[in-house]
Amino acid sequence: MIKVGIIGSTGYAGGELARLLLQREDIEIKWYGSKSYVDQKYASIYQNMFQIVDDACMDDNMKELANQVDVIFTATPQGLCASLIDEEILSKAKVIDLSADFRIKDVNVYEEWYKIKHPTPEYIEEAVYGLPEINREKIKTARLIANPGCYPTCSTLAIYPLVKEGLIDTNTIIIDAKSGVSGAGRGAKVDNLYCEVNESCKAYGVASHRHTPEIEEQLSYAAGKPVTLSFTPHLIPMNRGILITAYATLAKTVSYDEVKAIYDKYYAGEQFVRVLEKDVTPQTRWVEGSNFVDVNFKIDTRTNRIVMMGAMDNVVKGAAGQAVQNMNLRFGLPENTGLKQIPLFP
Amino acid sequence: MIKVGIIGSTGYAGGELARLLLQREDIEIKWYGSKSYVDQKYASIYQNMFQIVDDACMDDNMKELANQVDVIFTATPQGLCASLIDEEILSKAKVIDLSADFRIKDVNVYEEWYKIKHPTPEYIEEAVYGLPEINREKIKTARLIANPGCYPTCSTLAIYPLVKEGLIDTNTIIIDAKSGVSGAGRGAKVDNLYCEVNESCKAYGVASHRHTPEIEEQLSYAAGKPVTLSFTPHLIPMNRGILITAYATLAKTVSYDEVKAIYDKYYAGEQFVRVLEKDVTPQTRWVEGSNFVDVNFKIDTRTNRIVMMGAMDNVVKGAAGQAVQNMNLRFGLPENTGLKQIPLFP
Amino acid sequence: MIKVGIIGSTGYAGGELARLLLQREDIEIKWYGSKSYVDQKYASIYQNMFQIVDDACMDDNMKELANQVDVIFTATPQGLCASLIDEEILSKAKVIDLSADFRIKDVNVYEEWYKIKHPTPEYIEEAVYGLPEINREKIKTARLIANPGCYPTCSTLAIYPLVKEGLIDTNTIIIDAKSGVSGAGRGAKVDNLYCEVNESCKAYGVASHRHTPEIEEQLSYAAGKPVTLSFTPHLIPMNRGILITAYATLAKTVSYDEVKAIYDKYYAGEQFVRVLEKDVTPQTRWVEGSNFVDVNFKIDTRTNRIVMMGAMDNVVKGAAGQAVQNMNLRFGLPENTGLKQIPLFP
Amino acid sequence: MIKVGIIGSTGYAGGELARLLLQREDIEIKWYGSKSYVDQKYASIYQNMFQIVDDACMDDNMKELANQVDVIFTATPQGLCASLIDEEILSKAKVIDLSADFRIKDVNVYEEWYKIKHPTPEYIEEAVYGLPEINREKIKTARLIANPGCYPTCSTLAIYPLVKEGLIDTNTIIIDAKSGVSGAGRGAKVDNLYCEVNESCKAYGVASHRHTPEIEEQLSYAAGKPVTLSFTPHLIPMNRGILITAYATLAKTVSYDEVKAIYDKYYAGEQFVRVLEKDVTPQTRWVEGSNFVDVNFKIDTRTNRIVMMGAMDNVVKGAAGQAVQNMNLRFGLPENTGLKQIPLFP
Repeated sequence: MIKVGIIGSTGYAGGELARLLLQREDIEIKWYGSKSYVDQKYASIYQNMFQIVDDACMDDNMKELANQVDVIFTATPQGLCASLIDEEILSKAKVIDLSADFRIKDVNVYEEWYKIKHPTPEYIEEAVYGLPEINREKIKTARLIANPGCYPTCSTLAIYPLVKEGLIDTNTIIIDAKSGVSGAGRGAKVDNLYCEVNESCKAYGVASHRHTPEIEEQLSYAAGKPVTLSFTPHLIPMNRGILITAYATLAKTVSYDEVKAIYDKYYAGEQFVRVLEKDVTPQTRWVEGSNFVDVNFKIDTRTNRIVMMGAMDNVVKGAAGQAVQNMNLRFGLPENTGLKQIPLFP
Repeated sequence: MIKVGIIGSTGYAGGELARLLLQREDIEIKWYGSKSYVDQKYASIYQNMFQIVDDACMDDNMKELANQVDVIFTATPQGLCASLIDEEILSKAKVIDLSADFRIKDVNVYEEWYKIKHPTPEYIEEAVYGLPEINREKIKTARLIANPGCYPTCSTLAIYPLVKEGLIDTNTIIIDAKSGVSGAGRGAKVDNLYCEVNESCKAYGVASHRHTPEIEEQLSYAAGKPVTLSFTPHLIPMNRGILITAYATLAKTVSYDEVKAIYDKYYAGEQFVRVLEKDVTPQTRWVEGSNFVDVNFKIDTRTNRIVMMGAMDNVVKGAAGQAVQNMNLRFGLPENTGLKQIPLFP
Repeated sequence: MIKVGIIGSTGYAGGELARLLLQREDIEIKWYGSKSYVDQKYASIYQNMFQIVDDACMDDNMKELANQVDVIFTATPQGLCASLIDEEILSKAKVIDLSADFRIKDVNVYEEWYKIKHPTPEYIEEAVYGLPEINREKIKTARLIANPGCYPTCSTLAIYPLVKEGLIDTNTIIIDAKSGVSGAGRGAKVDNLYCEVNESCKAYGVASHRHTPEIEEQLSYAAGKPVTLSFTPHLIPMNRGILITAYATLAKTVSYDEVKAIYDKYYAGEQFVRVLEKDVTPQTRWVEGSNFVDVNFKIDTRTNRIVMMGAMDNVVKGAAGQAVQNMNLRFGLPENTGLKQIPLFP
Repeated sequence: MIKVGIIGSTGYAGGELARLLLQREDIEIKWYGSKSYVDQKYASIYQNMFQIVDDACMDDNMKELANQVDVIFTATPQGLCASLIDEEILSKAKVIDLSADFRIKDVNVYEEWYKIKHPTPEYIEEAVYGLPEINREKIKTARLIANPGCYPTCSTLAIYPLVKEGLIDTNTIIIDAKSGVSGAGRGAKVDNLYCEVNESCKAYGVASHRHTPEIEEQLSYAAGKPVTLSFTPHLIPMNRGILITAYATLAKTVSYDEVKAIYDKYYAGEQFVRVLEKDVTPQTRWVEGSNFVDVNFKIDTRTNRIVMMGAMDNVVKGAAGQAVQNMNLRFGLPENTGLKQIPLFP
């Protein structure tokens, strides 16, 4: 039995984490942390848990929590996890941080994009970027896992095989991303009201979104040199789902079969990345509620570009599902334990 | 290992049935039946099944199917299941019919409301109405199970305890129901196009919907006398979910606690019916993707009426999930096998 | 040129009022009142007005406003309008109040349902309930017009002809209403976030919604005796639109043609009430963005009930459009001035 | 009084055309053409027109129509308008074609992308591409106006000032477009059913969409040399609206103010193009139901790229509204006659 605590359990990612873990028999959730709802019944906030969870929310006391559990998930705003952890906590429990605090290795880049001072930069080095398809081995022994951002997960998985294989000109990468509204969180803001979002579509964070350096860092590792790219997220009127459409100029002439072979080389053994068949475009509805990322590509010979596409459930593979995948790896469990959900449709 | 065949596997109910069964290790789906997509890969129709199902669709040959499987689900238009079954089939395989063919005991009522001649009325008598919360014991030995309609499931479960206990005047029952669009099926009709349904709300089948006599029959059993009621379904712009709001005049003065005690009496032992806490109204989002029916009520002393409410996922408890529940009962399995999904939110 | 001020111009009803009035050449909006956005450009809040409105928001100074304009619209929370008006204001400008402050003649009923003390009950008597289809003549000379609630407008128009003609048993009226989310206003609440409302449906204010006594009062006038009824509103995932489905027992046997004749008698001369053709059910999409109310009915001979239905845009005929209609009447203009919009579809 | 006929009046663009024209007093619609609904009441297909239009649909007899009207709008599938027109028709009535038949000057390009043989290439030369912001003068005397496609309208208006001024490297243009579902038309296809589109997002026509050469042609005129670009449309779960996000490498270093000045130079005098204020991103909700195109841009100094954005109602400025704008120009009316609608929100 793995004992689990969730700091920030009442946000959408925290709620999904609870939902995924509650369906398992090898997990016990000991702590539903919350800043806003202390002492309130968890099931009164997430009524879907009615008669399933009887616990009330606890505060965010990570020190005490570390005494009680094997793994702590932090699904909290930027800076919080970093301000709470210390050697004592890390020596007692594994920490899987769903915020951005330990994703970026260069603390200056983090501080520039996130506009906050990093409270504990001394842990950045040891933190492992929790994208299992790339860092599987390191995850297995990490004390501190930086669970990737939603856009970076989908973008990196759709693009990095071609970067790694030198197929695309890394100066030309443009990522146009579309996300459902759950990515904006559960805070009460006019901008996220139903009537403001429904029947509308907009770009936001143009040329300034904080997931940009995270994607660049991962693709830089693949390229073996610094990658700078354009990233534009858009808000789409749907609950869940991220679609990314990425563009790059081909570095050499390639055929469909050659590119397909590369994707297959990287993903044939992966349980959660599906390389779709020719001309089938990824759609968010086909991955909803699951830990899958569907990827595909199209060569545009007229422009000598390649279009790379990925679809993913931002709350699952983009947050809670990936965190569970990381936990499974860290605790020596089959990687897909509790993550076998077939996408819900319609 | 239970061997399963699905006739009509490419409709929404059939697809959900496949999805639910594919997540189990004790089930083998042998036959993905379809009228429209014979020989096409099932996963090309339901792309969520990509790399999960490799089978192609087969035709609707129920005779042959009965030789190969232990249970046949028919998720087909009215009249089809009834026209296909015979003694030979029923002697070889259990049949769980998701259509209305065997739900109504009086063949004249069936023929009047469905406007078709019943091809095999001789099997109506033995068919068991598959609402486990009412007919659990009979389901366990049935050869032919008539899986209830979506509206009747939600309506009956919300209302019948009060009818059974004589709490409401059965001449005054009015059911106002709201359904997501998946209930309209996957046929290509202008009326169900995105732009026709989105941002709109309408009643349909007013005073003539075919689920009316089905609900009346079930409540008549509870009342011990014929019940005639008003039933009005509405189409709501969402994928899944049914909400019913039912009204009736109280037959006697009762308190909240007394009514609550009645619901608890009927449902305390039920795994899939949740009687919500006081003043918490059922919402479809809290049951989505699960086999739960959430019910609650409100006494209106000003009018001497009671308002009974129920929320349910029409594709799960209203169709495929209930069919699985019936199969579990019939095959002696724990009733919730494969049905433990916690509702998906958001 | 009619000079206009809007108190509460940044809510959804206030915004729609501005939008409707800005398209007219006989109206000048002098004052965009707001509590939250004083000194901010109106078009920065409602970006649809960019390059159309250059004004900044002003505070809610009704005294000063009365000096500058011919008519003041108050689209404000309950109690505010009543606390601001006085004889001086009413002597200078007409007031059309979109809140509930002057809709209900019995101040005790108001205070009981709205849980606030009425600050100026002395004006209740003279206030005219601004439902033109019923009170047209009185509106033409009123100083203070109580613009009806959204649910009461749609409900009353769908039901009152049959009450007036004694066709239904007024003890049996049940109104089941469905509303888009704009009815919940523009306040930042978790409950109205996109992800909380989308893909869901729920009842709220069961047996306690404050529009209940307003509907009862209007139908009581029609009946010539007190009417008590059941009213249950539901929240539907769409921006605009109200659909009401009302049920009552018939007081005598009537034919379709007889009932149709009654509706035609009341509405043949009305520009904004459309009695649909037989078996065409009202749908909110067919009235969106317009001042129409579409009504129809269905006789259910099995239960001796009649189902009365109405569809309306809650922001137009249910709020701002009706306010404009009242203004037109009050200022001697053709009633449909600025209200000729054909519903937007899709 | 201008007499009008609409061929293809029952599609979404045809319906919107009727809606816009019916609100004018200087227009008489003489002919509601339809292939599928001949002799059916127009208002039975578009119930929003109930009590507004009494006409029944007529067939697509363009010859006869030319005798009766001053202008014919063809909102029909590709190839139909081209197959119907001849010298006699053009000598009697102006033709505004909402299909793609006369948009592309090189008939080979048309035939290659549309996969049909052009029936009347002899009229391509004289046809005027009906984008008033570029071709205003030519439109005023044209017999045959090729109303632009939805994506090309929004894309061209967002991009061409910068191309014209030599600000961007025309080899680097990438357009990522997002469209509501009305763009897919009113045909009964499974792919456009509510449950298939709702809660989902996908790219389609990747590197092969037929609007690509149309955009390229217009930008080539602006560049004075051939432009080849990448264009990827996406389907978004909303009724109306197109958002385009375009990327290009800057040809020289420019400041925000310099780029802003260029947009202002082109659009300051335009009634339907709004250049938004700094950092305000175009959103489809702020243009819904109107003829506006909102544009803006963001310079990304990190990548030396510029992001150009445009939002538009695809059914209005992207189809019917622009057709009306062209008609106004052609008949010497103020360009915004009947097009002054302020966007509907929410």
